[in-house]
Amino acid sequence: MSEYDLLIKGGTVVTGVDVIACDVGINGEQIAAIGTNLTGARTIDASGLLVMPGGVDSHCHIEQLEPDGSIHEESFGTAARSAFAGGTTTVIPFAPQFKGEPIGAHLPDYRARAQKSPIDYSLHQMVTDPSEAVVFNELPAIAAGGVGSFKVFLTYDPLHVDDGQYISVLEAAKRAGAVVCVHCENYEAIRWRSEQLLKDGKTQPAAHAWSRPKVVEREATYRAIALAELVDTPIHIFHVSCAEVAEEIARAQARGVKVTAETCPQYLVLSGSDMDRPGKEGAKYMCSPSPREAADHAGLWAMIRRGVLDVLSSDHCGYSFAGDKGKWLNGPDVDFTRIPNGIPGLAARLPLIFSEGVVKGEIDLPTFVRLTATNPAKRFGLHPRKGTIAPGADADLVLWDRERKVSITNARMQHTIDYTPYEGIEVTGWPVKTIARGRVVMEDDEVTTEDGRGLFLKSARTSAN
Amino acid sequence: MSEYDLLIKGGTVVTGVDVIACDVGINGEQIAAIGTNLTGARTIDASGLLVMPGGVDSHCHIEQLEPDGSIHEESFGTAARSAFAGGTTTVIPFAPQFKGEPIGAHLPDYRARAQKSPIDYSLHQMVTDPSEAVVFNELPAIAAGGVGSFKVFLTYDPLHVDDGQYISVLEAAKRAGAVVCVHCENYEAIRWRSEQLLKDGKTQPAAHAWSRPKVVEREATYRAIALAELVDTPIHIFHVSCAEVAEEIARAQARGVKVTAETCPQYLVLSGSDMDRPGKEGAKYMCSPSPREAADHAGLWAMIRRGVLDVLSSDHCGYSFAGDKGKWLNGPDVDFTRIPNGIPGLAARLPLIFSEGVVKGEIDLPTFVRLTATNPAKRFGLHPRKGTIAPGADADLVLWDRERKVSITNARMQHTIDYTPYEGIEVTGWPVKTIARGRVVMEDDEVTTEDGRGLFLKSARTSAN
Amino acid sequence: MSEYDLLIKGGTVVTGVDVIACDVGINGEQIAAIGTNLTGARTIDASGLLVMPGGVDSHCHIEQLEPDGSIHEESFGTAARSAFAGGTTTVIPFAPQFKGEPIGAHLPDYRARAQKSPIDYSLHQMVTDPSEAVVFNELPAIAAGGVGSFKVFLTYDPLHVDDGQYISVLEAAKRAGAVVCVHCENYEAIRWRSEQLLKDGKTQPAAHAWSRPKVVEREATYRAIALAELVDTPIHIFHVSCAEVAEEIARAQARGVKVTAETCPQYLVLSGSDMDRPGKEGAKYMCSPSPREAADHAGLWAMIRRGVLDVLSSDHCGYSFAGDKGKWLNGPDVDFTRIPNGIPGLAARLPLIFSEGVVKGEIDLPTFVRLTATNPAKRFGLHPRKGTIAPGADADLVLWDRERKVSITNARMQHTIDYTPYEGIEVTGWPVKTIARGRVVMEDDEVTTEDGRGLFLKSARTSAN
Amino acid sequence: MSEYDLLIKGGTVVTGVDVIACDVGINGEQIAAIGTNLTGARTIDASGLLVMPGGVDSHCHIEQLEPDGSIHEESFGTAARSAFAGGTTTVIPFAPQFKGEPIGAHLPDYRARAQKSPIDYSLHQMVTDPSEAVVFNELPAIAAGGVGSFKVFLTYDPLHVDDGQYISVLEAAKRAGAVVCVHCENYEAIRWRSEQLLKDGKTQPAAHAWSRPKVVEREATYRAIALAELVDTPIHIFHVSCAEVAEEIARAQARGVKVTAETCPQYLVLSGSDMDRPGKEGAKYMCSPSPREAADHAGLWAMIRRGVLDVLSSDHCGYSFAGDKGKWLNGPDVDFTRIPNGIPGLAARLPLIFSEGVVKGEIDLPTFVRLTATNPAKRFGLHPRKGTIAPGADADLVLWDRERKVSITNARMQHTIDYTPYEGIEVTGWPVKTIARGRVVMEDDEVTTEDGRGLFLKSARTSAN
Repeated sequence: MSEYDLLIKGGTVVTGVDVIACDVGINGEQIAAIGTNLTGARTIDASGLLVMPGGVDSHCHIEQLEPDGSIHEESFGTAARSAFAGGTTTVIPFAPQFKGEPIGAHLPDYRARAQKSPIDYSLHQMVTDPSEAVVFNELPAIAAGGVGSFKVFLTYDPLHVDDGQYISVLEAAKRAGAVVCVHCENYEAIRWRSEQLLKDGKTQPAAHAWSRPKVVEREATYRAIALAELVDTPIHIFHVSCAEVAEEIARAQARGVKVTAETCPQYLVLSGSDMDRPGKEGAKYMCSPSPREAADHAGLWAMIRRGVLDVLSSDHCGYSFAGDKGKWLNGPDVDFTRIPNGIPGLAARLPLIFSEGVVKGEIDLPTFVRLTATNPAKRFGLHPRKGTIAPGADADLVLWDRERKVSITNARMQHTIDYTPYEGIEVTGWPVKTIARGRVVMEDDEVTTEDGRGLFLKSARTSAN
Repeated sequence: MSEYDLLIKGGTVVTGVDVIACDVGINGEQIAAIGTNLTGARTIDASGLLVMPGGVDSHCHIEQLEPDGSIHEESFGTAARSAFAGGTTTVIPFAPQFKGEPIGAHLPDYRARAQKSPIDYSLHQMVTDPSEAVVFNELPAIAAGGVGSFKVFLTYDPLHVDDGQYISVLEAAKRAGAVVCVHCENYEAIRWRSEQLLKDGKTQPAAHAWSRPKVVEREATYRAIALAELVDTPIHIFHVSCAEVAEEIARAQARGVKVTAETCPQYLVLSGSDMDRPGKEGAKYMCSPSPREAADHAGLWAMIRRGVLDVLSSDHCGYSFAGDKGKWLNGPDVDFTRIPNGIPGLAARLPLIFSEGVVKGEIDLPTFVRLTATNPAKRFGLHPRKGTIAPGADADLVLWDRERKVSITNARMQHTIDYTPYEGIEVTGWPVKTIARGRVVMEDDEVTTEDGRGLFLKSARTSAN
Repeated sequence: MSEYDLLIKGGTVVTGVDVIACDVGINGEQIAAIGTNLTGARTIDASGLLVMPGGVDSHCHIEQLEPDGSIHEESFGTAARSAFAGGTTTVIPFAPQFKGEPIGAHLPDYRARAQKSPIDYSLHQMVTDPSEAVVFNELPAIAAGGVGSFKVFLTYDPLHVDDGQYISVLEAAKRAGAVVCVHCENYEAIRWRSEQLLKDGKTQPAAHAWSRPKVVEREATYRAIALAELVDTPIHIFHVSCAEVAEEIARAQARGVKVTAETCPQYLVLSGSDMDRPGKEGAKYMCSPSPREAADHAGLWAMIRRGVLDVLSSDHCGYSFAGDKGKWLNGPDVDFTRIPNGIPGLAARLPLIFSEGVVKGEIDLPTFVRLTATNPAKRFGLHPRKGTIAPGADADLVLWDRERKVSITNARMQHTIDYTPYEGIEVTGWPVKTIARGRVVMEDDEVTTEDGRGLFLKSARTSAN
Repeated sequence: MSEYDLLIKGGTVVTGVDVIACDVGINGEQIAAIGTNLTGARTIDASGLLVMPGGVDSHCHIEQLEPDGSIHEESFGTAARSAFAGGTTTVIPFAPQFKGEPIGAHLPDYRARAQKSPIDYSLHQMVTDPSEAVVFNELPAIAAGGVGSFKVFLTYDPLHVDDGQYISVLEAAKRAGAVVCVHCENYEAIRWRSEQLLKDGKTQPAAHAWSRPKVVEREATYRAIALAELVDTPIHIFHVSCAEVAEEIARAQARGVKVTAETCPQYLVLSGSDMDRPGKEGAKYMCSPSPREAADHAGLWAMIRRGVLDVLSSDHCGYSFAGDKGKWLNGPDVDFTRIPNGIPGLAARLPLIFSEGVVKGEIDLPTFVRLTATNPAKRFGLHPRKGTIAPGADADLVLWDRERKVSITNARMQHTIDYTPYEGIEVTGWPVKTIARGRVVMEDDEVTTEDGRGLFLKSARTSAN
């Protein structure tokens, strides 16, 4: 055979359906062939390694403008480093909208900021104020322009939409052929519980978990689905935290509703009681919905195996202790409602899921690939360019040492945030090389990025079945 | 044996658990004994008749002040006539509250109006604006004063409460030991569908049914239950229209949530397509939730047999064609959203349920009594004074000819409303005498009422299991 | 008022639906009236006591011929003592059939033996060999003669029937208007597990529990229901041991299958690990299905509250340590498969359920009465003569001190068996007088019986809804 | 690039996860590469065609010895023709066992017969009499020898096993690491219904459907699963006919039971009332379980989309009208119980599922491939050699014209059976070339087979998740 530009030689290729001993031939930025006995101008020896599609992280917050005018600490530059460090090669962050305003320049601004991205990206458009102009003018244009995924929050001040607003977004998405992603928690219920807790002097981080029990998420999930049924628009439920919530999704899927859902490593590895650690430690684990308890992890794995939850994202959303998390934690009057929600997880996502899922026997290798790459790419219209190993696909690969044992540290995460909630967790299996569009961007934990190399990918809803 | 003041002789007494051939001895206004071979100063011959507890209609709108300042056409005087005509001896109507105001004088005013009631009554207090003063000052006092049931609407302009307000009412009820009754439909979803329909020129009565499909009720029911679970307050779901909604209630009951529910004859006898009748006819069947279709009736009976739905009320809420219904129907621009919702049913309730339920084999006699009398009395704390035939209970009885065939006409309903949605329906089984606190108030369709004879009964939540 | 022969004065009468302060007037053997201010020739002061229907124990083994030719130690005489001691006034034991034989003289023989019964009784007819003659000749005659309940075992050597035989019994019952009661465990599965256990040297009593896990009962219950659906015959499931089994019954009830079910105190109070007690102790708790674990009790109570399980029997089936239990236990080669299954519980049934159910808040008083008296009487056609307090019903009553605390001992059980599995359990609530057909048969634990006073009551299926 | 022996050029390759425009390079009998711009010594132009894995039919009866000593009309030679005609390249038929005998020489005999197979095959071993010798000696050796799938029938004279025998097979499979495939219908229930029907003179083919309603299959499925749970052995349910049965499988999967299941085209295309066609026509549709009704098809598709049913086989089992079907049909006393059950479907399988599934929008292309090739190969341990398009896999391919419209005729089926139940059905999509281990075996409906070319493939259970 003649030569490919770059050959990944002798590894075990994993796709969403197969595990195959073969080579991968790359020409330029694309996979040209997978085959046996291929030859290449340059060769990377993958003997003993798994060769998997680079991860697609369909839910992460990067360099995003916040309502208070600040911008997320994690820039495209640092996010790309962290993603590559952990084997991820595509991200889908969010362009914002703020209450009382049109989307206006926010999407162009965000796309301008993303110009310098070293990593390929697609976009979700947040919708927090679906005025008539937004619904009838902006969203159709936005979808037509390649952002075919709208994100709504059913909770969070000052982002949440009420049922009428949510219906408007569903309607806009239906007309535009877009998908709606939903953060499902009941706004008023959390507000009520939080007020109660504060009145009782429960201001510590752990109160965050107490303020939003499962029923708060379960209710909002049921509602999000019911209204989507009414309007007949496909939706995608973000960050499902427990089996009880997933069960409502399963019931809807069983009656034919077009609803898919993701979960995240924090719900499979962490627990709400982590927030009860002494001092400021608890704030490290604060995200919404709250992680539940260790006893809930098995139920989520079962829901993954049933296919009810078929995407696994990081919901990377970092706030440093030296920055926003700390600002509120270090004052005299700590108050859990003022500490920013969100935890970083871009780099940890694949290793955690591989170790907890594949190594511990919860899922097999093709399922790992589907969860972390193929399905998110399919859900948002990036497949088959992203999320698989096949001729014509982008040459986004991660070479994985399934035996390597690593203790997670913040340094290994290579993000800008000054902590990781997974500090000290031992994992088995670690990425040893990451290849993005044909270029090695991580080798033995050394990351190389090039500003502006990342491409914008149009998002759209495509996962019909 | 010595004599009772009044003896009901030789009938077949039906309680919530037994069917017994025996006499009922009444002294003054109470049942003194049930037994064989009793004797009485006066005797009513009940040979061949069923002797059942007078009906308890736990959901009806009587002489109620509306937001527009009008008062429901059905007065206590006419409502009592209709109730007695149909074998019902206790009613639970509603004292109002209006948005932007405290409850204030509305409850005293309503109780003043009820002074002239010829029929015994208890009260629900509507809560449409649970301000802090309402929640912390008014509702506790109201419950302490004997109105231990709060009613909220999750839909309807201008009555509906949002989730935060609903939670506040749940909290107030929890503190006060009251029950919360809930009208479950999603406000925003109905608003959206209605706007769509009007835009499409669908202004006719039938569009009322199209504006509120099952999913709209199912969602709100799930939410009402979830938030009650969160606050841990017992609730009672009003007018469940179909098995799909009841199934969500069944699931909650199965996991131990304190939720009970009623349905009404309109959901067992009428159908949404009745609203599609020509001309103005459709408006006769317009109530919320909308009746579903004939194919839904069997599912509701099954839910009654399972005990998921264990109360059957009329939701009597009449608007005459010569009055409010007609006002909107007769204008040049009929618009289903402006036609008042609600249909009369006080007198028809027992005959319809007896005929459709007992005669057609859906339920047995004790179940009929539990549904129409015992359970509503238990739910709202009126039992054992009301809702049963037992020594010490009020002598509220209906003597029933189970063979008699009657064609329902509006005249037979003896209400003030100028139509009945059940016109022309043939029923088997008809009340031949109604006795209220020892006095015969209906005999062969002749009703006798005395203004002011009706007693106020304290309501409270008591149905623990 | 004139006098009744016997007056139960000033108690709190509990029926399946009411709790009423009133008197009960008895003439001869029947209740003549319940009322206020009744008078009597003789009066029993029931102040401070509950007055409830005497218990109906619809599942107990008394003086029954066994396949080995022996007769159950518990005679009608001693069973009646134990029943009266515990507030029970009606029992339904079993006439046998043996493999390879017709029913033949067994029913007449059993009825002859029952002639001396001091307690009223009805009968189930066991069917272990439904030959054509049995199905087409004997069973119709037996049902016509007043034994309208057929019992089959899906497990037990040498009693069990296979699916074809079970279908034959269902068919016979359908034709005869009888109900089929089913012991649901999978014969072959238990045989297999038992062989495994014995091979592993697991011969001790605890192995009995290990030989028949929940799935074995769950499967047989599902099958019993499915075949009854096929033939369209009402069935009654005996001794449901856990919520998982009850859930299959609930699903069938929800789709309209005519199936009812009972549980027993052993499943609400004991646990399978009781059989793991040292020495021979474990054998005291050995019955089939095996009691499950303490964590299973709550699930059963929930199923009782949902109405899925609506009868509570004792499954009294005693074997003394000095008798049959001991015979096998005292040999050199104890083997759990040879130790007779069954535990005594006639006297303990009501106190245990009252204490665990009513006192601990699991059920209310009317539910207690329905479970222990009204529903079993209705299920087998004994109501309204038995199971309720109403004029015309037999004067079968138990006067109950709801405050009294008693520690259960075998002596208190007053049965012939030499142990009780409930030894040492503290209960709150105790029967202080039992009245059977107008005669006091127990007073302050002193039982008086008269051989031959017990009447035979025809059994039939009647519990339609 | 240098040349492959054979190149499939310019098609759209479909795998279980991807749809990719690329070439497939074949060296010898294996796929060597999939890639863009490959070159080959020989080239097949696949422009405009789908290139999919050759079908794996994991349930078909070929040249099988029957209890009466006859051999199935469909020989390996004719079966291979039919398979290739329909795009299938691997089959899994059955080696028999007969009651009262060991498996003995039957497997070697069958393997000898299979020596001449033109198509690759694996084997299931039927177990109808699991004596101790079979369980402890034969089955372990058989599994070790490469037949790791045991098939049991819960119904059928003279094949069915009782529960104890089924448990023995489960145990043997557990020890041997084999999977157990189960035909789930209740033997006794069918026997009873059949007798009833014959007594009523219902001898016609349609009575076959009436003799085995859904509940008969549902019960046996539940039981098969429960006993597999007990023994903890993975099972695979054959030919699920309707959603009600699949629902029991879904419930088991949700609680973690190792159970997978297939359905067949007859349950998605035919209906039970087809058997009611005049004359002998009905016999053409006679198989077990019986096809249900047209209204059941949608429910099965939904279960396929949920992943509850993830294998689609033909259950090809042909009897000619000129042969065994006819023998019984042509006599004077037709009796549905004597007409052989089974219908041919090898060639029709892929076209029917493509047309009804993909073309009508029920499933997408990768799901089609998983159902018909990847999943059956995985289930029985043939993957990744079979069931996928990947380097190293056998070059088993079908080139598919997705636009071509064909009316099914028996001639097109190219089997030996003299009818097809799908006669006259119009399908869209048709195989235009079939390639088996690198050789073109069908081209434009012309099939070429070579006796003895088919390889034996070891079967084993491997589909863990």
